[in-house]
Amino acid sequence: MKKIFVRDLEKHYDETIEFQGFLENVRDLPYVMFLILRDGTGKVQATIEKTEENQELIDMMQGVSLESTLKVVGVLKNAPAVKMGGKEIIPISIVVTSKSLSELPFDYNKKDNSLRETRLDYRFVDLRRQDNNLLFKAATLLEHSLREYCVQNNFMEIHSPKISGAAAESGAETFSLDYFGRTAYLSQSPQFYKQMAMAAGFDKVFEIGPAFRAENSHTSYHATEINMADVEISWIDSYQDVMDFEEAWLKFAIGKVYEKYGEQIEKEFKVKPTDIERPFARVTFKEAKEILKERYHYVGEKEDDLERKEENLLCKYAKDEFGTEFIFVTEYPFAARPFYHMLDESGNTCSYDLLFRGIEITTGAQREHRLDILKKQILVKGITLESLDFYLEFFQYGIPPHGGFAIGLQRLMMLLFHIDNIREATFIYRGPTRLNP
Amino acid sequence: MKKIFVRDLEKHYDETIEFQGFLENVRDLPYVMFLILRDGTGKVQATIEKTEENQELIDMMQGVSLESTLKVVGVLKNAPAVKMGGKEIIPISIVVTSKSLSELPFDYNKKDNSLRETRLDYRFVDLRRQDNNLLFKAATLLEHSLREYCVQNNFMEIHSPKISGAAAESGAETFSLDYFGRTAYLSQSPQFYKQMAMAAGFDKVFEIGPAFRAENSHTSYHATEINMADVEISWIDSYQDVMDFEEAWLKFAIGKVYEKYGEQIEKEFKVKPTDIERPFARVTFKEAKEILKERYHYVGEKEDDLERKEENLLCKYAKDEFGTEFIFVTEYPFAARPFYHMLDESGNTCSYDLLFRGIEITTGAQREHRLDILKKQILVKGITLESLDFYLEFFQYGIPPHGGFAIGLQRLMMLLFHIDNIREATFIYRGPTRLNP
Repeated sequence: MKKIFVRDLEKHYDETIEFQGFLENVRDLPYVMFLILRDGTGKVQATIEKTEENQELIDMMQGVSLESTLKVVGVLKNAPAVKMGGKEIIPISIVVTSKSLSELPFDYNKKDNSLRETRLDYRFVDLRRQDNNLLFKAATLLEHSLREYCVQNNFMEIHSPKISGAAAESGAETFSLDYFGRTAYLSQSPQFYKQMAMAAGFDKVFEIGPAFRAENSHTSYHATEINMADVEISWIDSYQDVMDFEEAWLKFAIGKVYEKYGEQIEKEFKVKPTDIERPFARVTFKEAKEILKERYHYVGEKEDDLERKEENLLCKYAKDEFGTEFIFVTEYPFAARPFYHMLDESGNTCSYDLLFRGIEITTGAQREHRLDILKKQILVKGITLESLDFYLEFFQYGIPPHGGFAIGLQRLMMLLFHIDNIREATFIYRGPTRLNP
Repeated sequence: MKKIFVRDLEKHYDETIEFQGFLENVRDLPYVMFLILRDGTGKVQATIEKTEENQELIDMMQGVSLESTLKVVGVLKNAPAVKMGGKEIIPISIVVTSKSLSELPFDYNKKDNSLRETRLDYRFVDLRRQDNNLLFKAATLLEHSLREYCVQNNFMEIHSPKISGAAAESGAETFSLDYFGRTAYLSQSPQFYKQMAMAAGFDKVFEIGPAFRAENSHTSYHATEINMADVEISWIDSYQDVMDFEEAWLKFAIGKVYEKYGEQIEKEFKVKPTDIERPFARVTFKEAKEILKERYHYVGEKEDDLERKEENLLCKYAKDEFGTEFIFVTEYPFAARPFYHMLDESGNTCSYDLLFRGIEITTGAQREHRLDILKKQILVKGITLESLDFYLEFFQYGIPPHGGFAIGLQRLMMLLFHIDNIREATFIYRGPTRLNP
């Protein structure tokens, strides 16, 4: 007999079914015992009348701790009076398939921030909470939809290596390991390899995979291991092509999530869906600085970059002026960007950041693919050509004009769900002082 | 103007279009110059008549090396006489968007095995070969279909951490790294974490991600970094449930690949599609040994495991007897299996291997989820309970009966495409002596 999930129960009224689940609660009344059982799709009540016939079941259940798992074979009844989904299982037999200790490390139904470290220690208990279940279902659909949009648009998926002989673009903050007597590095980003795929003639690629950052940061939105979605597109005419793609891609995937889980998300996370019908706002970096000064009378400390407060104000501007929570800021000064961003005639980069709900979620750009210019830009940044030898080879034998972007998926989920800390949006969080479970 | 891909050209006859591509070949005849241009979807000819009007284009093109990239604006003509796709572009303007060196490191159209190391050094050139382009398109669809089947069946996707404080199941052959002064390990498999997801009440999960093996192996099917697809399913009654799922899942995904690329695969790789209509063969380990002895008069060296030759013969048996190239061998002796496989009454494991074309591609099992029995099995294997402390915690607070499996995707692609070496089936291969590009 196959376990029926709560979601599918209503197709099986008056049948003898197998139900398996966690024992979430027991109400033991004088004439009847109610068991509340839970699987990942919902809850259902099992009702045991205290008859002589059921004595053995009753006795057995009295010794079972909450959160143990049961296999119940019984008859499913349509019972409109039952508050929990209008149905109940009348058990014929019950097997305890696993026993829980009688005391849990914490009450997992409460998301108590003061107990966060304990909750992370016992993440497998913490994840039983209903909002977490919903969160990772929604994350599954979000990612799947991001990939689906790529596949429908003839992208190829790559898996770039996470271990490399050369340190990544920034050099700093890279984990290193002993690799058969040599030093190897953990990948901070697929940047160089997705560009390599362009040199390989792969036209358009995407990758969703881990990225590692050896930053000793303890903020609410840093982690040492994150999941990034990376996209790179050949044969573009401008970074605008990259932005257009990203906007359509995010709208498609977020739309799928809202379509399926919108109501549940509003209820569980008390967050309104963001409007994905409207075009994302778009301003140049120069315009952004003007808007900040003239409209908000705010001048940031850095001339060639945006600080958090400025990003916040720009999101407010986008919402007030255009009714969208997304805003692209384009053409950043070269000083704020990596060496591989292409420059326009005025010396600004052909690049953008995408801001959402006050935070930067993406950096994108057209890449400089012309070897002679690329080398100059590397030297301007004070990097030696030797340190980028292997990367520069990709540009020797023809490489299409190309551009792309990356987006951290946990950060996106945090913002979509109004979650205050990346630790809560990650299946198993890794930080400088957290390597378990 | 947006680049039109070769695939879509036929929708644009008699229009002025933008085409971008690699310059694959030039035929320079007295009265006409033919350019063969390539993108990831095919090839197209551009035809420049040697008229006075075109003199500048002709002069410019004479200095351009093959494999440079061009942006051509021109009129697309339906030209049935043109061998390459029955169409040609009549250029109005051409811009060289990147220049290739005149000599490539090797002739990428030839898959010369004696040049394999050079080909791997310049993998971005090697990947331009047509069979490689097809291979990674097919791999994209295979993976996407594997995920699609999971999502349709209400699985949740997880991303288990690749950096951990505890070494993985086997302990041996794990890469270690310095993690802010502590020792951390790279994940060999999501095994423990996908089981943790079961304790979290996630019902059914999948993950496709990297796995790291510090094995100093130089065979044709080992790599230090591979991509694994992992599946874990709760509330099962038996390992048969896991096998049933895997069979349906593989048939779905391989079917999608054949549907779209079957003909091209046969042509490019000279390999017949495997029959995915028939049920996979199923024999117990005990039956397998009998078949080997009685039918093939072969007795392997190991009593409690199968060697390569035996796996080969069993695949022959499945094909001859049942017309399938897939065979499940079930109920291996405990000696050949890890501690976490559940045992049946006779002391064999509730586990299976899936063999395909002579090679094991999957190990699957029902897991022992009862803490007391699990501990005994750990001790029988000579492992200390302390070394598995963090894992054993997952079993303390209720955990569903569950099982799952893992499959290495490059190995599956190798076998489906009759590729002789995993280096050729991996986007960028990593082995003990290869850390680049």
